[in-house]
Amino acid sequence: MQRPQSPSFRSVVAKGEIVRVAGAHDALGGILAEQAGFDAVWSSSLEVSAARCLPDASVLTMTEYLEAAANMQKALGIPVIADCDTGYGNNLNVVHMVHEYEAAGITAVCMEDKLFPKLNSFAGGDQTLLSTEEFCGKIRAAKKAQRTDEFFVVARTEALINGLSVDVALERAYAYAEAGADAVLIHSKSKEKDEVEEFLNRWDGCRPVVIVPTTYPNWHIDDIAKAGASVVIYANQGLRATVSSLRKTFESIRRHGDTTALEESIAPVKEVFGLQKLKDWQALETV
Amino acid sequence: MQRPQSPSFRSVVAKGEIVRVAGAHDALGGILAEQAGFDAVWSSSLEVSAARCLPDASVLTMTEYLEAAANMQKALGIPVIADCDTGYGNNLNVVHMVHEYEAAGITAVCMEDKLFPKLNSFAGGDQTLLSTEEFCGKIRAAKKAQRTDEFFVVARTEALINGLSVDVALERAYAYAEAGADAVLIHSKSKEKDEVEEFLNRWDGCRPVVIVPTTYPNWHIDDIAKAGASVVIYANQGLRATVSSLRKTFESIRRHGDTTALEESIAPVKEVFGLQKLKDWQALETV
Amino acid sequence: MQRPQSPSFRSVVAKGEIVRVAGAHDALGGILAEQAGFDAVWSSSLEVSAARCLPDASVLTMTEYLEAAANMQKALGIPVIADCDTGYGNNLNVVHMVHEYEAAGITAVCMEDKLFPKLNSFAGGDQTLLSTEEFCGKIRAAKKAQRTDEFFVVARTEALINGLSVDVALERAYAYAEAGADAVLIHSKSKEKDEVEEFLNRWDGCRPVVIVPTTYPNWHIDDIAKAGASVVIYANQGLRATVSSLRKTFESIRRHGDTTALEESIAPVKEVFGLQKLKDWQALETV
Amino acid sequence: MQRPQSPSFRSVVAKGEIVRVAGAHDALGGILAEQAGFDAVWSSSLEVSAARCLPDASVLTMTEYLEAAANMQKALGIPVIADCDTGYGNNLNVVHMVHEYEAAGITAVCMEDKLFPKLNSFAGGDQTLLSTEEFCGKIRAAKKAQRTDEFFVVARTEALINGLSVDVALERAYAYAEAGADAVLIHSKSKEKDEVEEFLNRWDGCRPVVIVPTTYPNWHIDDIAKAGASVVIYANQGLRATVSSLRKTFESIRRHGDTTALEESIAPVKEVFGLQKLKDWQALETV
Repeated sequence: MQRPQSPSFRSVVAKGEIVRVAGAHDALGGILAEQAGFDAVWSSSLEVSAARCLPDASVLTMTEYLEAAANMQKALGIPVIADCDTGYGNNLNVVHMVHEYEAAGITAVCMEDKLFPKLNSFAGGDQTLLSTEEFCGKIRAAKKAQRTDEFFVVARTEALINGLSVDVALERAYAYAEAGADAVLIHSKSKEKDEVEEFLNRWDGCRPVVIVPTTYPNWHIDDIAKAGASVVIYANQGLRATVSSLRKTFESIRRHGDTTALEESIAPVKEVFGLQKLKDWQALETV
Repeated sequence: MQRPQSPSFRSVVAKGEIVRVAGAHDALGGILAEQAGFDAVWSSSLEVSAARCLPDASVLTMTEYLEAAANMQKALGIPVIADCDTGYGNNLNVVHMVHEYEAAGITAVCMEDKLFPKLNSFAGGDQTLLSTEEFCGKIRAAKKAQRTDEFFVVARTEALINGLSVDVALERAYAYAEAGADAVLIHSKSKEKDEVEEFLNRWDGCRPVVIVPTTYPNWHIDDIAKAGASVVIYANQGLRATVSSLRKTFESIRRHGDTTALEESIAPVKEVFGLQKLKDWQALETV
Repeated sequence: MQRPQSPSFRSVVAKGEIVRVAGAHDALGGILAEQAGFDAVWSSSLEVSAARCLPDASVLTMTEYLEAAANMQKALGIPVIADCDTGYGNNLNVVHMVHEYEAAGITAVCMEDKLFPKLNSFAGGDQTLLSTEEFCGKIRAAKKAQRTDEFFVVARTEALINGLSVDVALERAYAYAEAGADAVLIHSKSKEKDEVEEFLNRWDGCRPVVIVPTTYPNWHIDDIAKAGASVVIYANQGLRATVSSLRKTFESIRRHGDTTALEESIAPVKEVFGLQKLKDWQALETV
Repeated sequence: MQRPQSPSFRSVVAKGEIVRVAGAHDALGGILAEQAGFDAVWSSSLEVSAARCLPDASVLTMTEYLEAAANMQKALGIPVIADCDTGYGNNLNVVHMVHEYEAAGITAVCMEDKLFPKLNSFAGGDQTLLSTEEFCGKIRAAKKAQRTDEFFVVARTEALINGLSVDVALERAYAYAEAGADAVLIHSKSKEKDEVEEFLNRWDGCRPVVIVPTTYPNWHIDDIAKAGASVVIYANQGLRATVSSLRKTFESIRRHGDTTALEESIAPVKEVFGLQKLKDWQALETV
């Protein structure tokens, strides 16, 4: 019995069709994204930290984020992109990060150009950027540290998150591409897609662009593709659905005093067994 | 800033009211159970293994189950009861388990009387029991290994799961109480509550009884209390709701091509921030 | 900056010269073995458990043994063979073990034919063997679970440890080879090499043989090679030297009240920096 | 069977005699220090990182340092002081660190006033200090985060390491005491004790002072006590002895081709079993 084998993220991007990515924080979320037809899974720092009831503020360690990403990848036939925040420190931390993630079977990581420790992009608070040159150093360090050509580094600029202009975002993104990034991620917390759209319009296409339409949810994927993005990350909808669903479920049990009302709407235990591939495992008892 | 502090499971049971327990596999699930008014959280082996897409068959290690339980307890103001399967081996493993769980702040563990490696109780397959005497040895070893009087050991008999009679279940349960168990758990996969009800009717009350009404969901908690149980574990409904909810959410994104339709039904990012206590953490920037 | 890259254990054995292996429990021990000219490192259960002051009795979990082995392999240019005790349970545990070790970059594991939980072979106490057929099942399960052809499974028979005859040891070893083992390990706690030598004399050479001359230390490696063994594991001498050395060092500090007397005999801090490759890491500050 | 129980570091300091502390990186080193009569163990970042063959430069994560410290404390009857570098980031990281270390049973931590990521104090390279006010914020955050009064925070100034004067070191140390530190550590890489001695002469005794005589090894503990220090950490001699000992041992095996010559000088396997408390564990087989 073998584990599922996943293509690299690079090979998925190379197909040329827009890549749909779902955020998750554990293998269960990952497998459900895969079964729904997503092309890759985003091991989201927001999700992983929320699962621990700790802030998305570089409080959890690389060890913990890596464990989450690796445990997802082990169970999946689609690649995981690991949200690696700032790379966990300086160039040395970035190099160690690449060594560890690549060794754990992760084929793509994303680093952002904020200071360590970072704060979640949607949180009010300090979103100060590292200098362009220092972040380019991190990218170069990362690219020199990877062992295989497959490994893929996404450079994420938080220029718009920090209130800077599309001009600055573009300037940084080109510098990151120049430094060796395999793709750039342009993040925005605007309620409208406008600034991201402008970025895409003015981008020369030298690298694939990744977007994360959390605050502008109504941009249809076909339109996103037409606008020039290559990868779309639905970064945290799964987590947010889980919160709502658990809240309702637990409240229902408390209110009704039994679970009869729930049984219709929640997956049967057998479906859980299926996700665990229980039959395949039980077949191993006699080999 | 301090972490939440939890009373021990023993002190919760000592209140004398029926104890409502919700299954979970991470701190997020735990905090939502706490907010819904549950008295304790069951760190479920089925849930923890399902989160990894691995079978509930002693494949994950004690290290991994302990990490899940400890990460929940750290975030909660209610106690975690750790589902410790068979105690992960023999008496030595049990003693090490008690040392590790107690050191990690867990105040209650549950051990069952099946052979290691065990298989989930609802799975068709081998459910062979350890001899009564050997399991009593595990209970004695566990109780001698604990450091504080607070630590609480639940002895779970799988006699009914293994197709044995209520007579056998009672005989074992009394032996476990005699060996020092702080409570007994009577598990059943019957579609009706009958055999568990019979067990409760014939039980002399020398120890609190714990039940897990997964397959007989329509037994109301007030009636369970009247029947004589002290603790009710809703062991996996949260997991099963999560599976359904994630499936729907991911399918919706794939089908619609955007997340507009979802936004109404999923928790806003701010609610996630609240569960992470982001504001309290941000306030630490200036102390 | 790249991590050292190691050949697989299979490729080292394939060279045809006797393979010298040193036991270790951390990367530091491993690198010193590599620098001394060893061909591979044995991630020893005795060493790893001793480093934790816990018995070599299946008390530590696979997670912990794997972490130790993986952390060694990451730092080394020679392969690690992981001492995996009994495979941590039944066939399912073995399959999971192979998945995890192979994913962590380990190219060789060793499983022994005792019952789980096992006890160290040199300890007085129960050394009961699993039936030949059941252990062959574990070997078959392991071999089917590996992803690459490189992965190498050593089957270790504890027949002699259990007081059984060389006949039984040979019978089991042939069965294990037949079941797919890539090598067999014949272990003995005799003060003389005789029974191992007899085993080698009667072995038909269908698979490489591994020996562990802990209790018969005076067998020279050239003679071991002539006798037909392919791999020699010096399993715990490093650990035992560490114990003596730390004892002397700490007693010296207590006795003298300063460390002047020690400075001549202990490595300077700069030598530690060298083992950490500090200069290479510092060079990353500007990339 | 119970684990050893350790007094808190605070209670050891309160005895009023000079506290002897030995550096270690695993429980084995810790137990040998305890058996040699040391009063506490320093979970040294240099040692823990060297055991991984990684630089002492904030490359390993808090998770890994904590695991090392906690695994030591679990085995010991003397307290562990955890070398926590800079506190792993900003105030938020410090608070999380205190939560995690205290929950793991560690009763004392040490934080230093360098920037994250830090570099080992004996390494040539950047040793820039955080501003006094910011480091005081970390101390205040730490002290407010602890749950029990027992928890003990050592504030370490690297002023001398950074080439600053004893005046600056004193100014910082008083500020740290004022901010709530339970002790101050004055570190120096001078070949002579002079600047540390001057610090002690001019210190008003408002808090215990900790010193680390690595580069000035000939200062006798009685003289150190007379000079006014309360705690002496022999931070890495054990590690350096281990390096020398392993190097010799492995080279001896390679050179001689057998281990006969070693047997006299290395601990017998039985001594290892004793450190593992194997007999106590085996006695658990029948309880």
